[in-house]
Amino acid sequence: MATPFRLILLFLFGIFCVESKYIKYNTTAGIVPGKINVHLVAHSHDDVGWLKTVDQYYVGSNNSIQGACVQNVLDSIVPALLADKNRKFIYVEQAGLMLFFFSCAFFQRWWTDQSEEVQDTMKQLIKSGQLELINGGMCMHDEAAPHYIDMIDQTTLGHRFIKEEFNLTPRIGWQIDPFGHSAVQAYLLSAEVVPLYPAAVNMVGFDSLFFARIDYQDRAKRKDEKSLEVVWRASKSLGSSAQIFAGAFPENYEPPSNFYYEVNDDSPIIQDNMNLFDYNVPERVNEFVAAAVAQANITRTNHVMWTMGTDFKYQYAHTWFRAMDKFIHYVNQDGRVNALYSTPSIYTDAKHAANEAWPLKTDDYFPYADRVNAYWTGYFTSRPGLKGYVRTMSAYYLAARQLEFFKGKNKAGATTDSLADALALAQHHDAISGTSKQHVASDYAKRLSIGYKEAEEVVSASFACIAESCLKTGRPNPVCPLLNISYCPPSEVDLSTRKNLVVVVYNPLGWKREDVIRIPVYNEKVTVKDSEGKEVESQFLPIQDAYKTLRNYYSVAYLGKSKKEVPNYWLAFSASAPPLGYNTYIISSAKQTAVSSEIKSFYNSETAKNDKIEVGPGNVKLVYSGNEGNLIQYINSRSKVKQSVEQSYRYYYSDNGSADSQASGAYIFRPNGSHPIDPQQQVLLNVLRGPLVDEVHQRINSWIYQVTRLYKGKDHAEFEFTIGPIPMDDGIGKEVVTQIKATIQNKKKFYTDSSGRDFIERIRDYRKDWKLEVNQPIAGNYYPINLGIYMKDNDTELSVLVDRSVGGSSIKDGELELMLHRRLHEDDSRGVAEALNETVCVFDECTGLTVLGKYYLRIDPSGEGAKWRRSYGQEIYSPFLLAFTEQDGDNWASSHVASFSGMDPSYVLPDNVAMLTLQELDDGKVLLRLAHLYEIGEDKDLSVTSSVELKKVFPNKKINNVTETNLSANQERAEMEKKRLVWKVEGSSGEEAKVVRGGAVDPTALVVELAPMEIRTFVIDFN
Amino acid sequence: MATPFRLILLFLFGIFCVESKYIKYNTTAGIVPGKINVHLVAHSHDDVGWLKTVDQYYVGSNNSIQGACVQNVLDSIVPALLADKNRKFIYVEQAGLMLFFFSCAFFQRWWTDQSEEVQDTMKQLIKSGQLELINGGMCMHDEAAPHYIDMIDQTTLGHRFIKEEFNLTPRIGWQIDPFGHSAVQAYLLSAEVVPLYPAAVNMVGFDSLFFARIDYQDRAKRKDEKSLEVVWRASKSLGSSAQIFAGAFPENYEPPSNFYYEVNDDSPIIQDNMNLFDYNVPERVNEFVAAAVAQANITRTNHVMWTMGTDFKYQYAHTWFRAMDKFIHYVNQDGRVNALYSTPSIYTDAKHAANEAWPLKTDDYFPYADRVNAYWTGYFTSRPGLKGYVRTMSAYYLAARQLEFFKGKNKAGATTDSLADALALAQHHDAISGTSKQHVASDYAKRLSIGYKEAEEVVSASFACIAESCLKTGRPNPVCPLLNISYCPPSEVDLSTRKNLVVVVYNPLGWKREDVIRIPVYNEKVTVKDSEGKEVESQFLPIQDAYKTLRNYYSVAYLGKSKKEVPNYWLAFSASAPPLGYNTYIISSAKQTAVSSEIKSFYNSETAKNDKIEVGPGNVKLVYSGNEGNLIQYINSRSKVKQSVEQSYRYYYSDNGSADSQASGAYIFRPNGSHPIDPQQQVLLNVLRGPLVDEVHQRINSWIYQVTRLYKGKDHAEFEFTIGPIPMDDGIGKEVVTQIKATIQNKKKFYTDSSGRDFIERIRDYRKDWKLEVNQPIAGNYYPINLGIYMKDNDTELSVLVDRSVGGSSIKDGELELMLHRRLHEDDSRGVAEALNETVCVFDECTGLTVLGKYYLRIDPSGEGAKWRRSYGQEIYSPFLLAFTEQDGDNWASSHVASFSGMDPSYVLPDNVAMLTLQELDDGKVLLRLAHLYEIGEDKDLSVTSSVELKKVFPNKKINNVTETNLSANQERAEMEKKRLVWKVEGSSGEEAKVVRGGAVDPTALVVELAPMEIRTFVIDFN
Repeated sequence: MATPFRLILLFLFGIFCVESKYIKYNTTAGIVPGKINVHLVAHSHDDVGWLKTVDQYYVGSNNSIQGACVQNVLDSIVPALLADKNRKFIYVEQAGLMLFFFSCAFFQRWWTDQSEEVQDTMKQLIKSGQLELINGGMCMHDEAAPHYIDMIDQTTLGHRFIKEEFNLTPRIGWQIDPFGHSAVQAYLLSAEVVPLYPAAVNMVGFDSLFFARIDYQDRAKRKDEKSLEVVWRASKSLGSSAQIFAGAFPENYEPPSNFYYEVNDDSPIIQDNMNLFDYNVPERVNEFVAAAVAQANITRTNHVMWTMGTDFKYQYAHTWFRAMDKFIHYVNQDGRVNALYSTPSIYTDAKHAANEAWPLKTDDYFPYADRVNAYWTGYFTSRPGLKGYVRTMSAYYLAARQLEFFKGKNKAGATTDSLADALALAQHHDAISGTSKQHVASDYAKRLSIGYKEAEEVVSASFACIAESCLKTGRPNPVCPLLNISYCPPSEVDLSTRKNLVVVVYNPLGWKREDVIRIPVYNEKVTVKDSEGKEVESQFLPIQDAYKTLRNYYSVAYLGKSKKEVPNYWLAFSASAPPLGYNTYIISSAKQTAVSSEIKSFYNSETAKNDKIEVGPGNVKLVYSGNEGNLIQYINSRSKVKQSVEQSYRYYYSDNGSADSQASGAYIFRPNGSHPIDPQQQVLLNVLRGPLVDEVHQRINSWIYQVTRLYKGKDHAEFEFTIGPIPMDDGIGKEVVTQIKATIQNKKKFYTDSSGRDFIERIRDYRKDWKLEVNQPIAGNYYPINLGIYMKDNDTELSVLVDRSVGGSSIKDGELELMLHRRLHEDDSRGVAEALNETVCVFDECTGLTVLGKYYLRIDPSGEGAKWRRSYGQEIYSPFLLAFTEQDGDNWASSHVASFSGMDPSYVLPDNVAMLTLQELDDGKVLLRLAHLYEIGEDKDLSVTSSVELKKVFPNKKINNVTETNLSANQERAEMEKKRLVWKVEGSSGEEAKVVRGGAVDPTALVVELAPMEIRTFVIDFN
Repeated sequence: MATPFRLILLFLFGIFCVESKYIKYNTTAGIVPGKINVHLVAHSHDDVGWLKTVDQYYVGSNNSIQGACVQNVLDSIVPALLADKNRKFIYVEQAGLMLFFFSCAFFQRWWTDQSEEVQDTMKQLIKSGQLELINGGMCMHDEAAPHYIDMIDQTTLGHRFIKEEFNLTPRIGWQIDPFGHSAVQAYLLSAEVVPLYPAAVNMVGFDSLFFARIDYQDRAKRKDEKSLEVVWRASKSLGSSAQIFAGAFPENYEPPSNFYYEVNDDSPIIQDNMNLFDYNVPERVNEFVAAAVAQANITRTNHVMWTMGTDFKYQYAHTWFRAMDKFIHYVNQDGRVNALYSTPSIYTDAKHAANEAWPLKTDDYFPYADRVNAYWTGYFTSRPGLKGYVRTMSAYYLAARQLEFFKGKNKAGATTDSLADALALAQHHDAISGTSKQHVASDYAKRLSIGYKEAEEVVSASFACIAESCLKTGRPNPVCPLLNISYCPPSEVDLSTRKNLVVVVYNPLGWKREDVIRIPVYNEKVTVKDSEGKEVESQFLPIQDAYKTLRNYYSVAYLGKSKKEVPNYWLAFSASAPPLGYNTYIISSAKQTAVSSEIKSFYNSETAKNDKIEVGPGNVKLVYSGNEGNLIQYINSRSKVKQSVEQSYRYYYSDNGSADSQASGAYIFRPNGSHPIDPQQQVLLNVLRGPLVDEVHQRINSWIYQVTRLYKGKDHAEFEFTIGPIPMDDGIGKEVVTQIKATIQNKKKFYTDSSGRDFIERIRDYRKDWKLEVNQPIAGNYYPINLGIYMKDNDTELSVLVDRSVGGSSIKDGELELMLHRRLHEDDSRGVAEALNETVCVFDECTGLTVLGKYYLRIDPSGEGAKWRRSYGQEIYSPFLLAFTEQDGDNWASSHVASFSGMDPSYVLPDNVAMLTLQELDDGKVLLRLAHLYEIGEDKDLSVTSSVELKKVFPNKKINNVTETNLSANQERAEMEKKRLVWKVEGSSGEEAKVVRGGAVDPTALVVELAPMEIRTFVIDFN
């Protein structure tokens, strides 16, 4: 029966061969006034690790997990841009670009002569603006889990690379993927400061900031009100002086549906060859226009941006540009709307030129939910081990750079740069966020470990140089990363009469400081002396079995080795160190046993009802119920605070998604009921008392152990928790929180920090920007915590500080809670495709990860908590750095510099100022970053302008020149001034509230003023 | 508990930053004697239609079905080859390249000035050999379903394009995907002829032929014996004079596993950057060497070929070449084996240079099974409608080119070129094979229909020019493609006394010819006269209801229109036409009714037992059982043949794959039991008798109708079957066969043609090349049939000829069967991912496709069947071409050229010679192809050398020059001579049997000699 002839009809009059010409597409379109302008922004979102490691993404290996190769993107962009000078592309993650340019960041060149051609071409494309570098950090950092110091460092690293290589300054913030957006990102890591005096250029200085992920309820309302694009004033202290034009995308950071053009994408191509079948230009133009008009209907001004790309696209850039060429050509031929190759810079300028008034946005965009029951608040805590490690390394990097500066930076050999790179990568929004696959998380840790190892050499060499003229023998070794589990081989030495242990205690803070140090020792009969031979107060604490077990397991798991002999004691002693300096302590064998702690165990049966156990050698006492063994009261005899307080552990059952396919996962916290954990041991409390510290040991259950410490010299309580392995035999994920309950009438209000800096008021079940529809009363009230959380009523203020990024909330009045650990059974369907089930393995036997960490509690009279939060917060961030060496005989002090301060011995930084950065740059100049730690009105004494005398900070150097730069140190004031954009705010009078700022630095006096919340960055040229 | 430090150990000594340089990979390697040479052959296998249409593949649309875009391949190949002159690529399917070069094949240039750069670059790359065009046809044709004339035409089309554009001649046959390989492909479409006299260069002339798919059992044995590469002598008649070096790949046409480098492929990349993690050069080099050695172990000589690519790869060619650069560099550094960029030409030369003796292979590689129970013998029949349409169009193209030549080819306006293109595409191994998706099959049909439409204009214009000096009015219209279902509007006219129907009957054969024509008419009283006014014998046959139903349904389905008035009669009349010429017949109204057929119906009850019904107006009679209504005997009164014969229909149930996941599908025939179909109607037979033809009508069942015809002047029986819609309500696929049973002791042997040309002996359950393990006794004995099938014993020879490509076999001695239609429920998991369930739709109501076709039966004394098979086979292939016009009055003959012959009126071609091609080329020269139709020893009279007198073939033209070329007309003898390769055959004496060949053409006599099976191709230059 013959075969289909049906379509013959369509061709009855024979378009057998229409004459056609090669079409030169007209892509020259710029902005056309009076039309909807569709800014096509070609981009690739290249995570520096997520499902694959950063190197795997770069070279394109491990494609069975995800087809992604950043090398392809960079390789193919070059010819695609060369083919048509109207084409533009933006590149975001400098880690990828740096890999392209360098074999090892900043060190060795990647190419020989031939490949310099590629380098030159790439540079040319960047110079001409066809390839625009935006955001410009090493990675697109997360905004919930990173500390602001790390955000600054990783941004500086990328920005200075771009400046040095291309003499360019990125203009645009491009945080398209992070899962919520922080105030600090907006005002500090993005905004330019509107100068109130000539030199105030101390933020990053972007012209705008774009992102995709905001709460779905918020987004819906903003679409209705055309308020996706706003002027964001995120800082109470800096107000309109540090605002930024900020745009949330209408959907995610992809093109409108059906406009995807990666190799083999299935969006309809624009088929414009009349001689082939399926010619579809009119249909495709109509779809383009419809999508443009739809977006214009929710957008102010007639400019809309299409983000033409998504994760790891442009592997063969030609396919995208071929499609966009055609759209620009045919859409503009059609003429209803105007399509153009654009960049966020061009778009921002167009928005600015429109002279529109924009809605005002304050605070931040946390927490983020992408739909009902899907609050991305789990990742605030996910991978607490990694989060803690990053924080530890961050502090180490800060201190190591100081020591590197004191010694003088090596041109060859070990530097702190590897650690800088590793830390920068770790800030990525799938790194420290805890949302990568396990093998990738391990890769981040590995890189940190390598960087640490190299930085350790720097530190060791620096101590050697300072203490003994750079001798190579007997260097103090800063090598106890597992000290927290009592593993520290350098201190576990057999001290004979001739052999002493030398401990160098370095203080990276700008203030003098005293703290109690603890190291594991074998000997019971030892004495601790300072470098002048004066014995210092010390205390022995027996190492509990719980720690010994951890020590044995994890030293094998993490280091591949263990020591047979396990020390039985912690030796605690009180150490002090000058600002940016060290003191040396000598531990030697002694005739008599050192002061041991008095140990008392309290059993359920032993104590009469109503008996109370009071603990604490100093001002602060904790009172425990003798009956039930739990904390009942916090007393500070100095401040007269006396507050009922309870502390407990609970866990949430993780929802498995059976109801609506939304499980709790690495990103999303979705609880399904909660479960209190009561101590059910025979021993309620073990109390250790001594001259320096009292400890309360509690075995909460078989997998939670807690030590509460009260130091003689500290007016707070320290809680050290050991949580894990979280049992999962019941097939249910568990998310462990600690709860602190007090009789504080906080009326739904509590305060959490933004990226470790500003405190933002949070109100339970409420959002400022829209009427919240509450569907997750717990998860929807969680916020990220980097520094601390507090609540208050008229009388009392209860603060908790943390040692790493965690999630927390106040779910009921009078309560605060922190989520400390999570172990999950399900994936939450946001791409990582792995349940967050961290394990640790020894000889292929794996068990759930145990996490050891600390948090700190203090109760003050209302309004007086800031001082502790700020200053002790800084101490938590920057603990003493310890180094060890052994010494035969007793002559350390005589042959070494036993005490050292980098600053003038008479000088300390003001109480409200911290030194964030002291770093020798590759060119020998020094990067100095000083931060005022207080917000306006935060503390009656310290929320004031302070001064730092640079001559005393650098007592032995001649300061030749001090250049103040923006935050990321890639531009001076004059450059920035030229391109400042001023934005109109809806309903604003134009009158700005007066903000206090530090004045310009007089080149003779060299005194730096810092007003509340100011951070100032300088490049200092010494002789 | 901190985080993983484990890997710190690996880096303890800190390879923090190894100095690295941009690596210039050394890709210069050529062949290295004494080493295993791994020839990396970069290729992309670009089906011209399969899951998507050819245009969709080209532009990359419809990617949701399959991510594939040929434009990407061609676009990205250019810069990849330019980047390194050692890189090489082969391109196979000229259809794609032609799309790249032309907007519409051969006509209009694609580009303007700018794009000529690309054109020039591409030409340069082709000239330099970096881009080698191999195979060179428009497509990689199938080898089972195409007729050899179509194979020649599509190859010529591509080869002449390459010759004209690039002045190049492809050297290599590259049939890597077809599902089995035909003898004709080897000796005719590939081989060069070893010249026994100076001018014998009449095959395609490749130096070698490569393919992937051979039977899995065969392959296993060949691997063991290192006999994958052979010298293939596929023709009995031509023997060693037309042999070719042929290589079957060890696996498919892909790279060894783990060496795939398409964008996002998951083979391990070669990570050679020491500064990144996962450096793996040694491992990857080891794997490369291991794979090379493994292949060398099953290959003769130390050359192995790796086919670096597969379907639609090199979408971003850079990714492959980047990987191959590295492998060549590091593998050759390693030195155990030698890797090089190569092509099949280089590989072939290396094989030849090795002076090895190769195993001999004869016959063909059918059928193909890729594993147990997976015989790819279903596609021999899949889409019988499309297969029939292609065959019809093939014949039409042959005739239309003759008529185009007679008229003179247009420079502008309609030509036969569109039909040529469409037919060329239709030979693709997923087109005529029936293995494309339905929408793609429709696309092929649409293209044929468009090409036909344009060719129709050519034919019409030619008739007009010949008959009436190119007048535009009253042109004879050749427009009845649905004549087979009695739909022919030009003949369905109301013939008044003044109005006559003029029928032009054109004969494309080189012989005089007579045939019975039938056209539908309204009038009962008509007379048929020849152009001299002489009445010719005619006969009326009532159109049966079965045909009327088909006519009404399919004219709407295929043409979108129907005629209310349905003609009641077929008017049959005997027509004749001179060679390459026409006669004109005038049908006019008459006083008396024409001779009607005598109609008699035989009912079950009516005929006494043992009564016989004898039918047939001529020498051949068929005898039917009066009792059961079935055929029982074939009698030829002339040849005295009297043979018991039965004919029936059965169907196989298609296996649904439940046992081992191997269902019967578009490719694979897997029966699961068979079912006989007995006529169960009340009417056993309807017999129509008349002077020209007797017809036996049988309603076999509700969906099979059969008409058996016996013509007065023909010594065979014609079976016309109407099968469908095949019922599928039971959820089971069915594959319908017709069986012919005779008392012939064929002892497992039968004969099927190779691509319509040589007959090859087949032996049931047996293979010459290995000991067959029989697991599919039916499917494993199926062979492709394009011309016919026969069996014989000492007395008798039973032949069946077909009107299209089908599958067939002899499953039991004395039986032949043809599979005529298939409708399936399952897919067979070979990629097409659609069940072969053809439907036809009217107003969105669809029903299974009905297929109408014919086959022909003849029984001869043993050894005498060839003459009919060859000469009548040619008539089946090339039926009369009819054209119609109306005429007022009776003066057609006086005002028109009513009879015409393109040759000298006194001349006909010899009985054993056919004219395959008569075509005016674009440059005005003429392509002539003459074929001897007989094999050596096939017929006692006709297997002899014959002569054709060119002067008489072109009586009115002056032949200026005759150039003999190879088969695809892209090279002359001298060129070919230069590069002839001679191959040694294992165990051969070096003495070749003497083969008879036609001599050189004397430029004065202009007589062409043709020896058995010779095809000779000439380009003739007229004045």
